Amino acid sequence: MAKRPRKRNFPVSKVRRYLEPGPIVLVSSRWRGKTNIMTMGWHTVMEFTPSLFGCIIASGNHSFDLIRHSRQCVINLPTTALTDIVVGIGNTSGADIDKFEEFGLTADDAEEVGAPLIRECHANFECKLHDGRLIDKYNFFIFEVVKAHVAALPKHPQTLHYTGDGVFMVAGKIISRRSRFRPQML
Amino acid sequence: MAKRPRKRNFPVSKVRRYLEPGPIVLVSSRWRGKTNIMTMGWHTVMEFTPSLFGCIIASGNHSFDLIRHSRQCVINLPTTALTDIVVGIGNTSGADIDKFEEFGLTADDAEEVGAPLIRECHANFECKLHDGRLIDKYNFFIFEVVKAHVAALPKHPQTLHYTGDGVFMVAGKIISRRSRFRPQML
Repeated sequence: MAKRPRKRNFPVSKVRRYLEPGPIVLVSSRWRGKTNIMTMGWHTVMEFTPSLFGCIIASGNHSFDLIRHSRQCVINLPTTALTDIVVGIGNTSGADIDKFEEFGLTADDAEEVGAPLIRECHANFECKLHDGRLIDKYNFFIFEVVKAHVAALPKHPQTLHYTGDGVFMVAGKIISRRSRFRPQML
Repeated sequence: MAKRPRKRNFPVSKVRRYLEPGPIVLVSSRWRGKTNIMTMGWHTVMEFTPSLFGCIIASGNHSFDLIRHSRQCVINLPTTALTDIVVGIGNTSGADIDKFEEFGLTADDAEEVGAPLIRECHANFECKLHDGRLIDKYNFFIFEVVKAHVAALPKHPQTLHYTGDGVFMVAGKIISRRSRFRPQML
Protein backbone atom coordinates (compact mmCIF):
# COMPACT_ATOMS: atom_id res chain seq x y z
CA MET A 1 0.00 0.00 0.00
CA ALA A 2 1.33 3.39 -0.94
CA LYS A 3 1.66 6.03 1.74
CA ARG A 4 -1.07 8.60 2.17
CA PRO A 5 0.57 11.92 2.88
CA ARG A 6 -1.28 14.62 4.83
CA LYS A 7 -1.78 17.66 2.68
CA ARG A 8 -2.36 21.34 3.13
CA ASN A 9 -3.61 24.06 0.87
CA PHE A 10 -0.94 25.54 -1.35
CA PRO A 11 -1.04 28.83 -3.30
CA VAL A 12 -2.07 28.17 -6.90
CA SER A 13 0.27 30.92 -8.09
CA LYS A 14 3.21 28.81 -6.87
CA VAL A 15 2.49 25.42 -8.39
CA ARG A 16 5.50 25.87 -10.71
CA ARG A 17 7.46 24.61 -7.69
CA TYR A 18 6.15 21.12 -8.51
CA LEU A 19 5.29 21.28 -12.21
CA GLU A 20 8.10 23.27 -13.81
CA PRO A 21 10.67 20.50 -13.14
CA GLY A 22 8.72 18.39 -15.63
CA PRO A 23 7.61 15.30 -13.69
CA ILE A 24 5.36 12.58 -14.95
CA VAL A 25 1.91 13.33 -13.54
CA LEU A 26 -1.28 11.36 -13.17
CA VAL A 27 -4.38 13.01 -14.62
CA SER A 28 -7.64 12.03 -12.98
CA SER A 29 -11.02 12.78 -14.49
CA ARG A 30 -14.73 12.09 -14.02
CA TRP A 31 -17.63 12.41 -16.44
CA ARG A 32 -21.14 11.08 -15.97
CA GLY A 33 -20.11 8.86 -13.08
CA LYS A 34 -17.09 7.32 -14.81
CA THR A 35 -13.57 8.03 -13.59
CA ASN A 36 -10.19 7.44 -15.10
CA ILE A 37 -6.50 8.06 -14.58
CA MET A 38 -3.81 8.56 -17.22
CA THR A 39 -0.09 9.26 -17.12
CA MET A 40 1.15 12.45 -18.75
CA GLY A 41 4.58 13.87 -19.44
CA TRP A 42 3.87 16.52 -22.07
CA HIS A 43 2.96 19.60 -20.06
CA THR A 44 4.18 23.07 -19.16
CA VAL A 45 3.49 25.89 -16.76
CA MET A 46 2.16 28.87 -18.73
CA GLU A 47 1.42 31.66 -16.22
CA PHE A 48 1.56 32.44 -12.50
CA THR A 49 -1.70 34.41 -12.17
CA PRO A 50 -4.07 33.10 -13.30
CA SER A 51 -2.26 29.83 -12.67
CA LEU A 52 -2.17 28.34 -16.15
CA PHE A 53 -0.96 24.90 -17.15
CA GLY A 54 -0.86 23.54 -20.71
CA CYS A 55 -0.73 19.88 -21.66
CA ILE A 56 -1.19 17.38 -24.44
CA ILE A 57 -3.87 14.76 -23.91
CA ALA A 58 -3.87 12.60 -27.03
CA SER A 59 -7.32 11.90 -28.43
CA GLY A 60 -6.64 8.16 -28.38
CA ASN A 61 -6.68 8.15 -24.59
CA HIS A 62 -9.82 7.02 -22.80
CA SER A 63 -9.46 10.14 -20.64
CA PHE A 64 -9.69 12.50 -23.60
CA ASP A 65 -13.49 12.52 -23.83
CA LEU A 66 -13.99 12.58 -20.06
CA ILE A 67 -11.83 15.69 -19.80
CA ARG A 68 -13.06 17.39 -22.94
CA HIS A 69 -16.69 16.98 -21.91
CA SER A 70 -16.30 17.75 -18.20
CA ARG A 71 -13.78 20.55 -18.92
CA GLN A 72 -12.03 19.58 -15.69
CA CYS A 73 -9.34 17.32 -14.34
CA VAL A 74 -6.94 16.93 -11.44
CA ILE A 75 -3.18 16.85 -11.98
CA ASN A 76 -1.69 14.52 -9.36
CA LEU A 77 2.03 14.34 -8.60
CA PRO A 78 3.35 10.84 -7.87
CA THR A 79 6.74 10.16 -6.31
CA THR A 80 9.11 7.27 -6.95
CA ALA A 81 7.19 5.32 -4.27
CA LEU A 82 4.48 4.93 -6.91
CA THR A 83 6.75 4.02 -9.85
CA ASP A 84 5.16 0.66 -10.61
CA ILE A 85 1.66 2.08 -10.29
CA VAL A 86 2.59 4.89 -12.69
CA VAL A 87 3.84 2.32 -15.20
CA GLY A 88 0.73 0.20 -14.73
CA ILE A 89 -1.58 3.17 -15.28
CA GLY A 90 0.30 4.13 -18.43
CA ASN A 91 0.05 0.65 -19.87
CA THR A 92 -3.65 -0.02 -19.35
CA SER A 93 -6.81 1.62 -20.63
CA GLY A 94 -9.74 2.95 -18.65
CA ALA A 95 -11.91 1.40 -21.35
CA ASP A 96 -11.03 -1.99 -19.86
CA ILE A 97 -10.53 -1.46 -16.13
CA ASP A 98 -11.29 0.83 -13.20
CA LYS A 99 -7.83 2.16 -12.50
CA PHE A 100 -8.53 3.30 -8.93
CA GLU A 101 -9.61 -0.22 -8.07
CA GLU A 102 -6.97 -2.01 -10.13
CA PHE A 103 -4.09 -0.08 -8.59
CA GLY A 104 -5.43 0.31 -5.04
CA LEU A 105 -5.69 4.08 -5.22
CA THR A 106 -8.11 6.22 -3.23
CA ALA A 107 -10.39 8.73 -4.96
CA ASP A 108 -10.98 11.69 -2.66
CA ASP A 109 -13.45 14.45 -3.43
CA ALA A 110 -11.98 17.62 -4.82
CA GLU A 111 -13.23 21.02 -3.70
CA GLU A 112 -13.62 22.93 -6.93
CA VAL A 113 -13.99 20.26 -9.59
CA GLY A 114 -15.85 16.99 -10.05
CA ALA A 115 -12.74 14.96 -10.90
CA PRO A 116 -11.28 13.01 -7.96
CA LEU A 117 -8.01 13.62 -6.14
CA ILE A 118 -5.63 10.66 -5.91
CA ARG A 119 -4.96 10.52 -2.19
CA GLU A 120 -1.67 8.60 -2.45
CA CYS A 121 0.01 11.30 -4.57
CA HIS A 122 2.28 13.97 -3.09
CA ALA A 123 0.25 16.83 -4.53
CA ASN A 124 -3.07 17.41 -6.29
CA PHE A 125 -3.90 20.35 -8.52
CA GLU A 126 -7.56 20.91 -9.36
CA CYS A 127 -7.94 22.25 -12.88
CA LYS A 128 -10.66 23.85 -15.00
CA LEU A 129 -10.37 24.27 -18.75
CA HIS A 130 -9.27 27.84 -19.47
CA ASP A 131 -8.79 27.76 -23.23
CA GLY A 132 -9.65 24.89 -25.53
CA ARG A 133 -8.85 26.48 -28.88
CA LEU A 134 -5.87 24.21 -29.56
CA ILE A 135 -7.57 20.95 -28.61
CA ASP A 136 -8.74 20.06 -32.10
CA LYS A 137 -5.46 20.81 -33.83
CA TYR A 138 -2.88 19.75 -31.24
CA ASN A 139 -4.77 17.96 -28.43
CA PHE A 140 -3.43 20.84 -26.35
CA PHE A 141 -5.48 21.85 -23.29
CA ILE A 142 -4.87 25.06 -21.35
CA PHE A 143 -6.11 24.64 -17.78
CA GLU A 144 -6.35 27.01 -14.85
CA VAL A 145 -5.21 25.50 -11.56
CA VAL A 146 -8.01 26.58 -9.20
CA LYS A 147 -7.01 24.70 -6.03
CA ALA A 148 -3.78 23.05 -4.89
CA HIS A 149 -3.12 20.48 -2.16
CA VAL A 150 0.46 19.57 -1.28
CA ALA A 151 1.91 17.20 1.32
CA ALA A 152 4.09 18.96 3.88
CA LEU A 153 6.62 16.13 3.88
CA PRO A 154 8.92 15.09 2.40
CA LYS A 155 10.06 18.59 1.52
CA HIS A 156 11.92 17.39 -1.57
CA PRO A 157 10.11 14.32 -2.89
CA GLN A 158 11.74 12.20 -5.57
CA THR A 159 9.85 12.59 -8.82
CA LEU A 160 9.81 10.61 -12.08
CA HIS A 161 10.74 12.24 -15.39
CA TYR A 162 9.98 10.16 -18.44
CA THR A 163 12.43 9.87 -21.34
CA GLY A 164 10.51 7.37 -23.47
CA ASP A 165 11.61 3.78 -24.04
CA GLY A 166 10.42 2.68 -20.59
CA VAL A 167 13.08 4.74 -18.84
CA PHE A 168 12.57 7.39 -16.18
CA MET A 169 15.03 9.88 -14.79
CA VAL A 170 14.72 10.47 -11.07
CA ALA A 171 14.98 13.99 -9.65
CA GLY A 172 15.17 14.79 -5.98
CA LYS A 173 18.63 16.02 -5.14
CA ILE A 174 18.64 19.77 -4.74
CA ILE A 175 21.08 22.50 -5.76
CA SER A 176 20.41 25.99 -4.46
CA ARG A 177 21.87 29.06 -6.11
CA ARG A 178 19.45 31.44 -4.42
CA SER A 179 22.19 33.80 -3.34
CA ARG A 180 23.18 34.34 -6.97
CA PHE A 181 19.72 35.37 -8.17
CA ARG A 182 18.47 38.88 -8.53
CA PRO A 183 15.37 39.00 -6.30
CA GLN A 184 12.97 39.66 -9.17
CA MET A 185 14.36 36.67 -11.07
CA LEU A 186 13.56 34.07 -8.43
CA MET B 1 36.13 26.24 -19.26
CA ALA B 2 33.16 24.00 -19.81
CA LYS B 3 33.61 20.78 -21.74
CA ARG B 4 32.83 20.69 -25.42
CA PRO B 5 31.15 17.39 -26.18
CA ARG B 6 31.35 15.85 -29.64
CA LYS B 7 27.91 15.58 -31.13
CA ARG B 8 26.16 13.53 -33.74
CA ASN B 9 22.91 13.94 -35.61
CA PHE B 10 19.90 12.71 -33.72
CA PRO B 11 16.41 11.92 -35.08
CA VAL B 12 14.12 14.91 -34.55
CA SER B 13 11.19 12.58 -33.88
CA LYS B 14 12.99 11.38 -30.74
CA VAL B 15 13.91 14.61 -29.01
CA ARG B 16 11.39 13.82 -26.27
CA ARG B 17 14.22 11.72 -24.86
CA TYR B 18 15.86 14.97 -23.74
CA LEU B 19 12.99 17.43 -23.47
CA GLU B 20 10.12 15.47 -21.93
CA PRO B 21 11.93 15.18 -18.55
CA GLY B 22 11.52 18.95 -18.24
CA PRO B 23 15.06 20.33 -17.94
CA ILE B 24 16.03 23.95 -17.87
CA VAL B 25 17.19 24.80 -21.39
CA LEU B 26 19.12 27.67 -22.92
CA VAL B 27 17.44 29.35 -25.86
CA SER B 28 19.79 30.97 -28.35
CA SER B 29 18.66 33.41 -31.00
CA ARG B 30 19.96 35.76 -33.68
CA TRP B 31 18.27 38.64 -35.45
CA ARG B 32 19.97 41.27 -37.62
CA GLY B 33 23.41 40.31 -36.35
CA LYS B 34 22.54 40.37 -32.66
CA THR B 35 22.57 37.17 -30.64
CA ASN B 36 21.24 36.34 -27.24
CA ILE B 37 20.73 33.47 -24.81
CA MET B 38 17.98 33.03 -22.25
CA THR B 39 17.09 30.35 -19.74
CA MET B 40 13.72 28.65 -20.08
CA GLY B 41 11.83 26.16 -17.96
CA TRP B 42 8.28 26.49 -19.26
CA HIS B 43 8.15 24.14 -22.23
CA THR B 44 6.60 20.90 -23.45
CA VAL B 45 6.91 18.34 -26.19
CA MET B 46 3.77 18.51 -28.36
CA GLU B 47 4.19 15.94 -31.16
CA PHE B 48 6.63 13.35 -32.50
CA THR B 49 6.17 13.99 -36.24
CA PRO B 50 6.40 16.78 -37.07
CA SER B 51 8.61 17.24 -34.03
CA LEU B 52 6.74 19.98 -32.18
CA PHE B 53 7.84 21.80 -29.05
CA GLY B 54 5.84 24.50 -27.25
CA CYS B 55 7.26 27.06 -24.85
CA ILE B 56 6.62 30.33 -23.07
CA ILE B 57 9.00 33.17 -23.88
CA ALA B 58 7.83 36.13 -21.85
CA SER B 59 7.65 39.37 -23.79
CA GLY B 60 9.83 41.13 -21.21
CA ASN B 61 12.83 39.05 -22.27
CA HIS B 62 15.37 40.60 -24.60
CA SER B 63 15.15 37.38 -26.64
CA PHE B 64 11.45 37.78 -27.31
CA ASP B 65 11.80 40.17 -30.24
CA LEU B 66 14.81 38.35 -31.70
CA ILE B 67 12.84 35.12 -31.79
CA ARG B 68 9.53 36.61 -32.86
CA HIS B 69 11.11 38.45 -35.75
CA SER B 70 13.51 35.73 -36.90
CA ARG B 71 10.91 33.00 -36.23
CA GLN B 72 13.79 30.71 -35.24
CA CYS B 73 15.81 29.68 -32.23
CA VAL B 74 17.98 26.87 -30.92
CA ILE B 75 17.04 24.95 -27.77
CA ASN B 76 20.29 23.98 -26.03
CA LEU B 77 20.46 21.44 -23.21
CA PRO B 78 22.94 22.27 -20.43
CA THR B 79 24.06 19.76 -17.82
CA THR B 80 24.96 20.37 -14.19
CA ALA B 81 28.51 21.17 -15.35
CA LEU B 82 27.05 24.48 -16.55
CA THR B 83 24.96 25.28 -13.44
CA ASP B 84 26.60 28.59 -12.63
CA ILE B 85 26.51 29.68 -16.27
CA VAL B 86 22.80 28.84 -16.42
CA VAL B 87 22.19 30.96 -13.34
CA GLY B 88 24.28 33.78 -14.76
CA ILE B 89 22.41 33.75 -18.05
CA GLY B 90 19.08 33.80 -16.23
CA ASN B 91 20.07 36.78 -14.12
CA THR B 92 21.40 39.10 -16.80
CA SER B 93 19.89 40.74 -19.84
CA GLY B 94 21.06 40.64 -23.42
CA ALA B 95 20.18 44.32 -23.54
CA ASP B 96 23.27 44.94 -21.38
CA ILE B 97 25.80 42.27 -22.31
CA ASP B 98 26.86 39.77 -24.96
CA LYS B 99 26.10 36.55 -23.17
CA PHE B 100 28.34 34.34 -25.33
CA GLU B 101 31.28 36.56 -24.47
CA GLU B 102 30.33 37.15 -20.84
CA PHE B 103 29.98 33.46 -20.06
CA GLY B 104 32.73 32.07 -22.30
CA LEU B 105 30.37 30.13 -24.55
CA THR B 106 31.00 29.26 -28.18
CA ALA B 107 28.49 30.11 -30.89
CA ASP B 108 28.61 27.48 -33.61
CA ASP B 109 26.72 27.78 -36.86
CA ALA B 110 23.51 25.83 -37.08
CA GLU B 111 22.54 23.99 -40.27
CA GLU B 112 18.90 24.89 -40.74
CA VAL B 113 18.49 28.15 -38.83
CA GLY B 114 20.33 31.40 -38.33
CA ALA B 115 20.43 31.18 -34.55
CA PRO B 116 23.70 29.82 -33.12
CA LEU B 117 24.29 26.50 -31.38
CA ILE B 118 25.89 26.67 -27.95
CA ARG B 119 28.80 24.29 -28.35
CA GLU B 120 29.26 23.58 -24.63
CA CYS B 121 25.73 22.18 -24.22
CA HIS B 122 24.97 18.46 -24.32
CA ALA B 123 22.43 18.81 -27.11
CA ASN B 124 21.18 21.43 -29.56
CA PHE B 125 17.79 21.45 -31.22
CA GLU B 126 17.33 23.78 -34.18
CA CYS B 127 13.79 25.17 -34.26
CA LYS B 128 11.57 27.04 -36.69
CA LEU B 129 8.32 28.69 -35.68
CA HIS B 130 5.47 26.37 -36.59
CA ASP B 131 2.46 28.20 -35.13
CA GLY B 132 2.49 31.66 -33.59
CA ARG B 133 -1.20 32.10 -32.93
CA LEU B 134 -0.82 31.99 -29.13
CA ILE B 135 2.12 34.38 -28.93
CA ASP B 136 0.08 37.52 -28.41
CA LYS B 137 -2.22 36.09 -25.76
CA TYR B 138 0.09 33.73 -23.85
CA ASN B 139 3.66 34.35 -25.13
CA PHE B 140 3.38 30.72 -26.24
CA PHE B 141 5.49 29.68 -29.24
CA ILE B 142 5.01 26.37 -31.07
CA PHE B 143 8.25 25.39 -32.79
CA GLU B 144 9.18 22.54 -35.08
CA VAL B 145 12.51 20.92 -34.27
CA VAL B 146 14.13 20.66 -37.69
CA LYS B 147 17.59 19.41 -36.74
CA ALA B 148 19.00 17.80 -33.60
CA HIS B 149 22.60 17.39 -32.41
CA VAL B 150 23.33 15.29 -29.34
CA ALA B 151 26.58 14.38 -27.60
CA ALA B 152 27.22 10.63 -27.55
CA LEU B 153 28.55 10.77 -24.00
CA PRO B 154 27.66 10.80 -21.22
CA LYS B 155 24.71 8.55 -22.01
CA HIS B 156 22.72 9.86 -19.05
CA PRO B 157 23.80 13.45 -18.40
CA GLN B 158 22.71 15.18 -15.22
CA THR B 159 20.20 17.88 -16.02
CA LEU B 160 18.82 20.84 -14.07
CA HIS B 161 15.11 21.18 -13.33
CA TYR B 162 14.05 24.52 -11.93
CA THR B 163 11.58 24.83 -9.05
CA GLY B 164 11.69 28.59 -8.60
CA ASP B 165 13.23 30.34 -5.59
CA GLY B 166 16.77 29.78 -6.86
CA VAL B 167 16.54 26.02 -6.39
CA PHE B 168 17.13 23.32 -9.00
CA MET B 169 16.36 19.63 -8.81
CA VAL B 170 18.98 17.43 -10.41
CA ALA B 171 17.95 14.45 -12.53
CA GLY B 172 20.34 11.85 -13.83
CA LYS B 173 19.76 8.60 -12.00
CA ILE B 174 17.81 6.19 -14.18
CA ILE B 175 15.03 3.71 -13.47
CA SER B 176 14.07 1.37 -16.31
CA ARG B 177 10.71 -0.38 -16.40
CA ARG B 178 10.97 -1.22 -20.07
CA SER B 179 9.99 -4.86 -19.51
CA ARG B 180 6.67 -3.75 -18.04
CA PHE B 181 5.62 -1.60 -20.99
CA ARG B 182 3.43 -2.70 -23.82
CA PRO B 183 5.56 -2.14 -26.96
CA GLN B 184 3.25 0.50 -28.40
CA MET B 185 3.36 2.45 -25.13
CA LEU B 186 7.12 2.97 -25.05
